[in-house]
Amino acid sequence: MAGGSQLLRIQNPPSIVSSAAVVGRKEFEGPLGADFDLHADDDKFGMDTWEKAESEMQRLAFGLMLKKGVIKETDVDAIFAGDLLNQCTGSSFGLLDFNIPYFGLYGACSTMAESMMLAALMVGNGVFQRAAAVCSSHFCSAERQFRFPIEYGGQRTPTSQWTVTGAGAMLLAKDGNGPYVTEVMPGISVQKGVKDANNMGAAMAPAAVDTLKRYFSCSGAVPEDFDAILTGDLGQIGHEITAEMLYAVGFNIKKMYNDCGLMIYSAKTQDVHAGGSGCGCSGSIMCGPVMKRFRNGTYNNILFIGTGALMSPGSVQQGMPIAGIAHLVRISSTLPACGGGGEGVSP
Amino acid sequence: MAGGSQLLRIQNPPSIVSSAAVVGRKEFEGPLGADFDLHADDDKFGMDTWEKAESEMQRLAFGLMLKKGVIKETDVDAIFAGDLLNQCTGSSFGLLDFNIPYFGLYGACSTMAESMMLAALMVGNGVFQRAAAVCSSHFCSAERQFRFPIEYGGQRTPTSQWTVTGAGAMLLAKDGNGPYVTEVMPGISVQKGVKDANNMGAAMAPAAVDTLKRYFSCSGAVPEDFDAILTGDLGQIGHEITAEMLYAVGFNIKKMYNDCGLMIYSAKTQDVHAGGSGCGCSGSIMCGPVMKRFRNGTYNNILFIGTGALMSPGSVQQGMPIAGIAHLVRISSTLPACGGGGEGVSP
Repeated sequence: MAGGSQLLRIQNPPSIVSSAAVVGRKEFEGPLGADFDLHADDDKFGMDTWEKAESEMQRLAFGLMLKKGVIKETDVDAIFAGDLLNQCTGSSFGLLDFNIPYFGLYGACSTMAESMMLAALMVGNGVFQRAAAVCSSHFCSAERQFRFPIEYGGQRTPTSQWTVTGAGAMLLAKDGNGPYVTEVMPGISVQKGVKDANNMGAAMAPAAVDTLKRYFSCSGAVPEDFDAILTGDLGQIGHEITAEMLYAVGFNIKKMYNDCGLMIYSAKTQDVHAGGSGCGCSGSIMCGPVMKRFRNGTYNNILFIGTGALMSPGSVQQGMPIAGIAHLVRISSTLPACGGGGEGVSP
Repeated sequence: MAGGSQLLRIQNPPSIVSSAAVVGRKEFEGPLGADFDLHADDDKFGMDTWEKAESEMQRLAFGLMLKKGVIKETDVDAIFAGDLLNQCTGSSFGLLDFNIPYFGLYGACSTMAESMMLAALMVGNGVFQRAAAVCSSHFCSAERQFRFPIEYGGQRTPTSQWTVTGAGAMLLAKDGNGPYVTEVMPGISVQKGVKDANNMGAAMAPAAVDTLKRYFSCSGAVPEDFDAILTGDLGQIGHEITAEMLYAVGFNIKKMYNDCGLMIYSAKTQDVHAGGSGCGCSGSIMCGPVMKRFRNGTYNNILFIGTGALMSPGSVQQGMPIAGIAHLVRISSTLPACGGGGEGVSP
């Protein structure tokens, strides 16, 4: 990539050869419930703590992904994984059983995009033949860590989002029949002064706008090229801000724009306020429903923009603003007509 | 890389073109104090909380690294960064000022090696022209998060280590005169049942042994090829375990083996029990003293094995064992006689 350019066209686009999504009961009862691979009625997955349940979801998702793709553990060259728990123990314990080189990530709720991006760059440039992208979140482990213990029964503000209980695992490989990751654009942290930890959508939206604006400015693509443009977990508030901010600068994505946090729950029948959130939100949606739509031909070309809020309960207590980050991944069912040549594209 | 192989020889080894290390007072007073770029006498770096001080160290280290290398911010294509704070806020706030694509990592204390490894693979394979590796830890932010508030004055066990107050930033570039990152080997999580959070050295040593054993088995290199083999922060206990375990399987590294956690403080005059630890331990040592030794010719060829303990206070409270991970980076002042060709090497 040339200095200052930020869109990365992948030389030999890797193929998403297998994926699996594991969710909790509420997610299973949502409008996309049938498109996930596995769920547990009690969200505990046979474990005695919520944190262990979260790790177990990652273990199950990764194992299922291998099984569905008829892939041996020894054929996976690397795992890129992360989650929201302090010190990312959801991933480190969840994937401990697998004897595979492990890259721990912290991208907050953007982890699915960050891990896909790194796996795609590594496989697409010949470093690995097969690399996995994995992430998770759990409503109960997130509530007690970021907000209140669930037993407390605290009121939620209207702008608050519901952390998804879910995990996604995906394998990117050199050889395969698609869908392909053809382009990625790493996010830049953006901070616009939002300090309300119950309004993550507003805190993250400017980052999504920044990444999409950069993307459309330098890729040559237009919104109409895509069957869907999906952000990770901006929810109602962030979704609206993103659409309007982009519209104001000349990019109308309203027709094909959706957000994983709006897709996973029913706004009418499931009381989740502004929508879903968490690594597991886009993680389970990408590895379940979205991959299914590529298989059945509904999607041929999409942009996925994983969104993350870079904050901690401690940073909020210390009065720090909440920065956002948004990583972009383009997924296409066919390879680009002319290869990108692996070069960066200057905006 | 072929499936199952794990040593990555970098096609076009990137050059470490600039680095900077910022430390606290205790580290400045240690035997390598003169080799760091900057220190603060009160460890606060002008901030009002320890967490903000940690971020400030990263900001200072990154800025200083740019300045020392006469590099413009716009010339850095990506930052790979992480730290030990919950949700990695040391890095996200510390590097927020810089308008550069950001990849958040969580590698526990192995972050310097993980970030160097990713930056080296990306630059070495033409994805980026210049990528930075950054990390930090702070004794006071770590104490109150992982152990007790420092005001409590808790007793420390003899096996405990002292979290280094320090940050390191390094820039890897396509063009440069070395030292070069010629090989990397990502770590695999290893868990041998250690549950004592005050004995991280013992928890991490098996991971260091695993990585070094794999490295010597498939690289063709022998310990005598290196001026130094440096682990990140195993301290006294972990250093001894690693040397003995490797000796038992036929690899004698005792002559050239040291640990950043043993180098940074004086065992005689500074009361740090089993040695230094934290991302900032190997981070500041690699970006300060080690780079200086390459410049003055003391080092021409070393192995750096960043070591991390994959745990959280919560996972320890829930009775989970502590897994370790160790990422290996080979640094050489000259390029290999014959290129590695970018292919993985099977063990």
